[in-house]
Amino acid sequence: MWGRPYDETNMVFSCMLCRRRERERCICENCYVRIMNQHNREINDLKAKVAFLSFWYPPNDDDAHHDSTHPALFFPDVMLVTSCSDDFSGSPPDPIHAHKAILADRSPVFKEMFENEMKESKTGTIKINDASNDAVRAFVNYMYTAEALVDENMGCALLVLAEKYMVKHLKDYCEKFLSTKLNWENSLNRYAFAHHNNAKLLLESALRIILNNMNMLTQREEYKEFVEKDPLLVVEIYEAYLSKLLND
Amino acid sequence: MWGRPYDETNMVFSCMLCRRRERERCICENCYVRIMNQHNREINDLKAKVAFLSFWYPPNDDDAHHDSTHPALFFPDVMLVTSCSDDFSGSPPDPIHAHKAILADRSPVFKEMFENEMKESKTGTIKINDASNDAVRAFVNYMYTAEALVDENMGCALLVLAEKYMVKHLKDYCEKFLSTKLNWENSLNRYAFAHHNNAKLLLESALRIILNNMNMLTQREEYKEFVEKDPLLVVEIYEAYLSKLLND
Repeated sequence: MWGRPYDETNMVFSCMLCRRRERERCICENCYVRIMNQHNREINDLKAKVAFLSFWYPPNDDDAHHDSTHPALFFPDVMLVTSCSDDFSGSPPDPIHAHKAILADRSPVFKEMFENEMKESKTGTIKINDASNDAVRAFVNYMYTAEALVDENMGCALLVLAEKYMVKHLKDYCEKFLSTKLNWENSLNRYAFAHHNNAKLLLESALRIILNNMNMLTQREEYKEFVEKDPLLVVEIYEAYLSKLLND
Repeated sequence: MWGRPYDETNMVFSCMLCRRRERERCICENCYVRIMNQHNREINDLKAKVAFLSFWYPPNDDDAHHDSTHPALFFPDVMLVTSCSDDFSGSPPDPIHAHKAILADRSPVFKEMFENEMKESKTGTIKINDASNDAVRAFVNYMYTAEALVDENMGCALLVLAEKYMVKHLKDYCEKFLSTKLNWENSLNRYAFAHHNNAKLLLESALRIILNNMNMLTQREEYKEFVEKDPLLVVEIYEAYLSKLLND
């Protein structure tokens, strides 16, 4: 694995990793291996901790409905109910079982809900009308595992839930994921979405793309919509553009 | 922070970290910084995940007894009761509240206990007679946080509980901790302790110390005790010694 010096006769050394000739700053193999071993030990310890703390969850939804060893079916004391079914059968969606202690630990909104003995706490049923059943199931799953398999739609749905229930770790996760999926086509819509959901990282990433394409801005269809429906949003883009021009 | 080459005229480079002259294998500053950044990002992500998944626990026991925001007091559905009080007041120890879902997720023994509707599940009370109240409290705390502040006594008490309830992550933690505290004085006792609790890592570490001090073995007081009470344990030490002599 380790490279030999690039040019031994002239005593010019090449980096073992990138093979570039490097005349000055370098670290020796011993130090590098020692530091890598330390890091790997730390990473392995942390991974073991995550594995211990996260709850086992069945890999797919079908199992989740029927498997009685599912942690959220293990003496649950609360139920999340959505109004919209994800399939087209017309049958009401299955309620999603969970534990007050776990939801409350991850979300200050749930914590207050349960502590103050609000209706949700007494009946043990939380109604969520503004999200799909699949999104709420993925949301609850995240509370138990800190894991989510998301596409862009699910990423947006989870970000909305994370913002509503103040689950910062999930919100960061969604913002990072959605930021990697940004392009000129979706940047205006994502900018507005980030704005409405107080998602600073996503907002800044989308704004950066918009500012790099200002010459095409007014031709976009969404632009005209925003000017009509949400002109303040458009003003903020122009303000950022002006500030960029003045500072560059 | 970065060192300059040790001896530029002769083109012999010194490592930026250990300052040793290094004539051959090295990596350049760019690669090193890039890899460190990757590792640090991974470590920070994992730390954030651990923080999200671990439950908030009050920093000391007094708070735990009285703080109603304590997660294990948040809609608990099970109670752990020990028979021995840790203080000298003679009053029975406070029961330790917890959640079946969390205990069952971390321990297959608790899982079976609750799934099979054994007495403990029906009454919601688990009696633990062979551990102190402080040890059981630290044990439950670990189930919620993956953290324990241990001295050697507590390390041993937690290892016994971890073995009994099959909490592998905690057992590994205790074995590693106790291994760092091994010396010739405690090695025989720890060896026996590891033997009885099926603690392979600790057993091997203790055995290594004993084998390096065989000339003093028969003089130790514990040695005579073990010969009387548990001769098979002593035989195993001699077998390991013989095998070491033959292989060296």
